[in-house]
Amino acid sequence: MSGNHENEPLSYREAGVDIDAAERALAAARREIETTLDDRCLSRAGSFGGLYRVPVEDYREPVLVSSTDSVGTKVKVAVRAGRHDTVGRDIVNHCVNDILVQGARPLFFLDYIGIGRVEPGVISGLLAGLARACRENGCALIGGETAELRDVYAEGEYDLVGTVVGVVERDRILDGSRVRPGDAILGLPSTGLHTNGYTLARRIFFERAGLAPESRVPELGVTAAEALLAVHRSYLGAVFPLLEGEAVSALAHITGGGIPDNVPRVLPPGCRARIHRGSWEVPPLFRFLAERGPVAESECFRVFNMGIGFVLVVRPEHEEEVRRRLAESGEEPVRIGEVEAGERGVEFVG
Amino acid sequence: MSGNHENEPLSYREAGVDIDAAERALAAARREIETTLDDRCLSRAGSFGGLYRVPVEDYREPVLVSSTDSVGTKVKVAVRAGRHDTVGRDIVNHCVNDILVQGARPLFFLDYIGIGRVEPGVISGLLAGLARACRENGCALIGGETAELRDVYAEGEYDLVGTVVGVVERDRILDGSRVRPGDAILGLPSTGLHTNGYTLARRIFFERAGLAPESRVPELGVTAAEALLAVHRSYLGAVFPLLEGEAVSALAHITGGGIPDNVPRVLPPGCRARIHRGSWEVPPLFRFLAERGPVAESECFRVFNMGIGFVLVVRPEHEEEVRRRLAESGEEPVRIGEVEAGERGVEFVG
Repeated sequence: MSGNHENEPLSYREAGVDIDAAERALAAARREIETTLDDRCLSRAGSFGGLYRVPVEDYREPVLVSSTDSVGTKVKVAVRAGRHDTVGRDIVNHCVNDILVQGARPLFFLDYIGIGRVEPGVISGLLAGLARACRENGCALIGGETAELRDVYAEGEYDLVGTVVGVVERDRILDGSRVRPGDAILGLPSTGLHTNGYTLARRIFFERAGLAPESRVPELGVTAAEALLAVHRSYLGAVFPLLEGEAVSALAHITGGGIPDNVPRVLPPGCRARIHRGSWEVPPLFRFLAERGPVAESECFRVFNMGIGFVLVVRPEHEEEVRRRLAESGEEPVRIGEVEAGERGVEFVG
Repeated sequence: MSGNHENEPLSYREAGVDIDAAERALAAARREIETTLDDRCLSRAGSFGGLYRVPVEDYREPVLVSSTDSVGTKVKVAVRAGRHDTVGRDIVNHCVNDILVQGARPLFFLDYIGIGRVEPGVISGLLAGLARACRENGCALIGGETAELRDVYAEGEYDLVGTVVGVVERDRILDGSRVRPGDAILGLPSTGLHTNGYTLARRIFFERAGLAPESRVPELGVTAAEALLAVHRSYLGAVFPLLEGEAVSALAHITGGGIPDNVPRVLPPGCRARIHRGSWEVPPLFRFLAERGPVAESECFRVFNMGIGFVLVVRPEHEEEVRRRLAESGEEPVRIGEVEAGERGVEFVG
């Protein structure tokens, strides 16, 4: 029976949808996914909706903080390199960092994979990465969907979307109101491009520099794929324990728009950030992109994180304590600037 | 300055990303979105993460129920027809129905639009539909993301992903355990294909039947686009008020896999559903698809909802009361079968 002949009976599979293929890939990953679940999860992988008991006993006035996002065109690098677990980790860490900025810790995560044709190896790679990062962030991978949408996605491509839901005590929400002139601005190193600037970075690596994913890049000591697929790290473990007292005034996740767009978002009116450009060493990856584009320095700072993935705004009297505690967590915080009175924005100096 | 010449400086916009276009489309829809927010929403459109206060005062042991999904290749019909608000409504209603099955009412919703090139008219149409359906379901459109991913999506295409988070009292979760042999099975009419079977339906409409979106289909009295874009309705308003007492044993949302796959998912071991095929009139749309495919009847029942969009499993002693209350809500419930003892599954008779 073939669907290619006029008037012969049609079935869903012949029309191009294999309902079972995604189900098989999920079954293979189910054990991995179940390692992320705890006793607050009242449903198992594969049920209708994900059930999660609100930890009401731990909060006076719990507020849910949620965020949904994708990893941008980093997925195209994953496809070219044939490696899918890293973008799975990226999207979880990215979402976790986004809600950490408001003081929240993650409770659970849901993924969506849209793909032109289900390839079990791709799905299982993605799910393995998602499950690993959820486990690392103490977050339950409570639900998800894999949708085979022929002709929506370009040949061989997919999109990976994640949604995180976390919780914060209402009077501990970080909303910028605690920030004062004189606060110190500390930066934590990024592990690479994280999930931003990939349309430009791919063009520079693969077109302007003429590299293939497997090409070794002498300036970086790794292959193009290794440089571009470096995992977007989570800052939860290092930063969340610092949020109990009054030391931290605000946090910023340096994503699209870079330091110039993301730092002002967490400042109150009347406060501006003064950033000392020479206070940290811009990693070779970003120097490579700037030179090989070429990309103007101001554009680089808007598109890329330039080596700073997360920012803490800290009371000056607590700066030493925060730096010490971060160092004890294995972090290398850098003082990259301070808050001063003025029109909300960022001023780069030095 | 052109990015097409080797060695000329590159910017993100020249590399193909216009950060501002999505922001402009969002700004235009912001007033619409804000109509969905209530005093439990502690953040406004455009902030980092969405903040939602858990209604702890209304629940002894609140359990969050969440689901993420897309509308499948129904988006391709929207693109061909140039109409985007209806799929926006579809994804919200679809997700709301999915968590209603476990007894939950929705709290908030997040959307993700992945698109090859941001077209403000497409984004504003989608957001208008999302906001309308969120308002209709009493659910806050608390967050979202529009991602421009050139070369991931096929030319002119997009994917629309939604995530809903709702709440249910722990001891009111519908998990199938209340179902008993003898329970009545009531069906509520669908409004069309809802969001399932579009790969097959598009092939039948646009290839086998040779129709264009604007072609009038005499058998249906509407155009192909009108038939295919009919909005996936929400069952929340009619069904949620029935969940207080003990009348309802289980609910099923008839999505991919049809009645044969979705009804058994909510039955306990030792219970099977006996469905009387002739108990409702299969709407003309499904007869058209079966004839013009042609598609075998058994395949039709697995791929399409065949006119029944939602199923209630009801205690026999409460059947009349439930039917009366549904009729008072403007519903036309049909008794399509009953639960009997036996191996879990569905048996079609008649």
